[in-house]
Amino acid sequence: MDIEQFRKAGYQAIDRICDYFYSLEKRPVASQVQPGYLREALPDSAPEQGEEWDTIADDYQKLILPGITHWQHPSFFAYFPTASTFEGLLGDLYASSTSNPGFNWNSSPACTELEAVVMDWSAKLFGLGDHFLNSSEIGGGVIQTTASDSALVAIVAARSAYTKKHPGVKHEDLIIYTTTQTHSLGTKAALVLGLQCRALQVKAEDEFGLRGDTLKQAIEEDTKQGKHPFVIIATIGTTSSGAIDRLNEIGEVVKGSSLWVHVDAAWAGVTLSCPEFRDIAQLDYINKYGDSLCVNFHKWGLVNFDASAFWVRDRKLLTDALDITPEYLRTKHGDAGTVIDYRNWHLALGRRFRSLKIWFVLRSFGQEGFRNYIRKSVALNNYFVSLVKQSPSFSFVTKPSFALTVFRLTPQLHEGSKISPTQESLNDLNREFHNRTLTRPEILLTQTVIDGVFCIRFAVGAERTTKEHIDKAWALIQEEAEVALGIWAKKAVSVPN
Amino acid sequence: MDIEQFRKAGYQAIDRICDYFYSLEKRPVASQVQPGYLREALPDSAPEQGEEWDTIADDYQKLILPGITHWQHPSFFAYFPTASTFEGLLGDLYASSTSNPGFNWNSSPACTELEAVVMDWSAKLFGLGDHFLNSSEIGGGVIQTTASDSALVAIVAARSAYTKKHPGVKHEDLIIYTTTQTHSLGTKAALVLGLQCRALQVKAEDEFGLRGDTLKQAIEEDTKQGKHPFVIIATIGTTSSGAIDRLNEIGEVVKGSSLWVHVDAAWAGVTLSCPEFRDIAQLDYINKYGDSLCVNFHKWGLVNFDASAFWVRDRKLLTDALDITPEYLRTKHGDAGTVIDYRNWHLALGRRFRSLKIWFVLRSFGQEGFRNYIRKSVALNNYFVSLVKQSPSFSFVTKPSFALTVFRLTPQLHEGSKISPTQESLNDLNREFHNRTLTRPEILLTQTVIDGVFCIRFAVGAERTTKEHIDKAWALIQEEAEVALGIWAKKAVSVPN
Repeated sequence: MDIEQFRKAGYQAIDRICDYFYSLEKRPVASQVQPGYLREALPDSAPEQGEEWDTIADDYQKLILPGITHWQHPSFFAYFPTASTFEGLLGDLYASSTSNPGFNWNSSPACTELEAVVMDWSAKLFGLGDHFLNSSEIGGGVIQTTASDSALVAIVAARSAYTKKHPGVKHEDLIIYTTTQTHSLGTKAALVLGLQCRALQVKAEDEFGLRGDTLKQAIEEDTKQGKHPFVIIATIGTTSSGAIDRLNEIGEVVKGSSLWVHVDAAWAGVTLSCPEFRDIAQLDYINKYGDSLCVNFHKWGLVNFDASAFWVRDRKLLTDALDITPEYLRTKHGDAGTVIDYRNWHLALGRRFRSLKIWFVLRSFGQEGFRNYIRKSVALNNYFVSLVKQSPSFSFVTKPSFALTVFRLTPQLHEGSKISPTQESLNDLNREFHNRTLTRPEILLTQTVIDGVFCIRFAVGAERTTKEHIDKAWALIQEEAEVALGIWAKKAVSVPN
Repeated sequence: MDIEQFRKAGYQAIDRICDYFYSLEKRPVASQVQPGYLREALPDSAPEQGEEWDTIADDYQKLILPGITHWQHPSFFAYFPTASTFEGLLGDLYASSTSNPGFNWNSSPACTELEAVVMDWSAKLFGLGDHFLNSSEIGGGVIQTTASDSALVAIVAARSAYTKKHPGVKHEDLIIYTTTQTHSLGTKAALVLGLQCRALQVKAEDEFGLRGDTLKQAIEEDTKQGKHPFVIIATIGTTSSGAIDRLNEIGEVVKGSSLWVHVDAAWAGVTLSCPEFRDIAQLDYINKYGDSLCVNFHKWGLVNFDASAFWVRDRKLLTDALDITPEYLRTKHGDAGTVIDYRNWHLALGRRFRSLKIWFVLRSFGQEGFRNYIRKSVALNNYFVSLVKQSPSFSFVTKPSFALTVFRLTPQLHEGSKISPTQESLNDLNREFHNRTLTRPEILLTQTVIDGVFCIRFAVGAERTTKEHIDKAWALIQEEAEVALGIWAKKAVSVPN
């Protein structure tokens, strides 16, 4: 494809992307294809001769789009959002055009320099302390691919710092602390690193946030057994229910110890942009106790996947753990230490130019626009919460958190009813209810299990979601709940006493 | 930005990218900015109010582009290429528009399905055995971000498989084998995983390829000391010099043992597309002995960064090592095992829709076009080799490898000359020569050190490079060599005997 052919194909792509967004609401939220649909539709091998671009571009529309679940659909309430924007998309587009792996300052100075600046802008937007700024030259920020990578990098740095302070500690005795509500990234990192991971218990009465006492007790138990807990992953906004670990208590427990506190605020971290959410999101304690922090711009932060912001209190602990400089990567400025070589701040060598899309988004929205967007999502969720509250059939499983509500069907039974629902029976009811919503192409909701309770997550955050979409979602939820309740009541009654 | 504003900004971006490619040759290959240039040019914080798109887009041209080193420039001969194409760029563009994290089949079936198909297409393009195909349902292929990630994943799978077979083996006793010429990914993985890494010696007489005897001896030595070598990273085309480890010999040594053979063909793997290169790239032995294989499409494979193709002989060994399935990620098809959930094939959870750009490239070029492109690069390098051969001032440090030549200045001195150059003195000369080329904006070459010898790498592969660019490069090289030689001779003569 030459330059003029690209201009044509590029215009076409832009037009088709516009069409895509115009048609978004008419599409089913979740893809309706069956496993294997694409293998059946495609030949076994790449074509021997090149094909015309128009054929290829048409096949994208015909074969790929039907297999896409539309995370930008305003009625996508599943998982967490990937709230993309056109600004983010344009950032990725310009970055693709110079396609360079930016592994050190020299390989493209702008990539490193913009990342350092944009991470400082973001730190200020989120109210982080000066010690997290790149300009401090002590701490600093770097863009990782995902929160899993951020956590892995934090744990590697923590392990390196810990074993340097405690030489002779055996790998087998090291322990990562998470909670039973921590994202799978904790267990995954433990698997990858071959380390033990202990998931500390959290309680419903604490809204599933980790308490200091639980941590303290675990440290005492493990230390007594010769184990070495060296890192705790504390979450601000867990995946299942948006739970918030008590950083103030955790901080008091670990104060003066060598335990690294990694704060995973992958989803809820963006709320730190709004002063009114900073207390609940524990900004002061992040600043006081956090050794590292992760906030995903690519979830609820208006930046297209992937862009996981990661800050560290002491960059030297990170680069000490990850620095490799073979001769073919040496440069004048790198040797002199006058520049950041980001390859020593993450797992891989090469890296995409991700700061560009964050720069575009922060400039186009402004800090105010960014905050307003977060506020809008929270307000929409609050509206959803008010609807759930009014209904006699539903209840909350935990306190709603920012833009996430976890709820389930808990039918109120009239006195003398033969039905006395067990946990298991209620779980069956909610599974039936959730499965019914999955058959409805107009919406997508995902499930979770908390403390044995099967429940439904309602996560607001797609850029195009409005009050009208919440109303539509609520109507559909009520409709399917009614059917599910009917089926369930019949089954329950038919069970012999 | 609304849809129509995006259409305008999108057209503008496409036009400006066209302008960029038209102007590419007039730009300096390496960015000429100084450290800190961007921080000085930008405000300290993100703007409070959003800015106009035109201002932002203009700033990209004014502030970012001058800080870019142009890896697509036809006179970029540094590192290894990131040979991008418009097709690859369009793949990334469409993928950005639906921005979804594709972590399991359900989250967007097309992402998983296309990846499975495209990896099979690629396996066939490269002549891989059927056991590497996803359709085999035993082995399979997955796209990782980089070769470092691919190696890390391979080592994690190898460690998991090994420790299951040999329970009770201590972490401290496990050893990763690389060679002194292996890419930094080996050492980096060892750092990340906290494992020992032994770099086996390779010799100039073997063109820096690992021999079976060296490996055999190392295994004997380490085993005797109670150590457990469990993985060897064998390279097809090392970064420094394009060296090729002798897979046939390595395979014979490890046959029947539990040692995992990871083949890192990140750069040279694309030559497997051409039947005439398959013997030298050891296709038969990759198929016979390789437990896993990495080929980066984003280096010399016409696909924009990032797209690292990774195959594994036994997918179960991979997913056994990495599978995490919390309730909120469970799906009907995943539970039934009827679909691939790629999140269990890599480090992170979320993943970009990278297969799209590979699909676009393979279809638009066809297998024939892809092969011709590889052949063109090799032919251009052979032409460069012929120029070096004709010159009395230069010599090769190792045998040229595919599209990479490693050479240096080794001036022939007339009899009776007072100058009798030591290794150190020759290294000084070549450093001076290389530094001089770095002052020339028309070209970019990078250096390496092999066995104490400082030398220059000449890597062909940017999509737009033609014979004319080789001629220009050669003229510049000769010019700077002459100046460097003059300075060096003067210095050498002035040294008192």
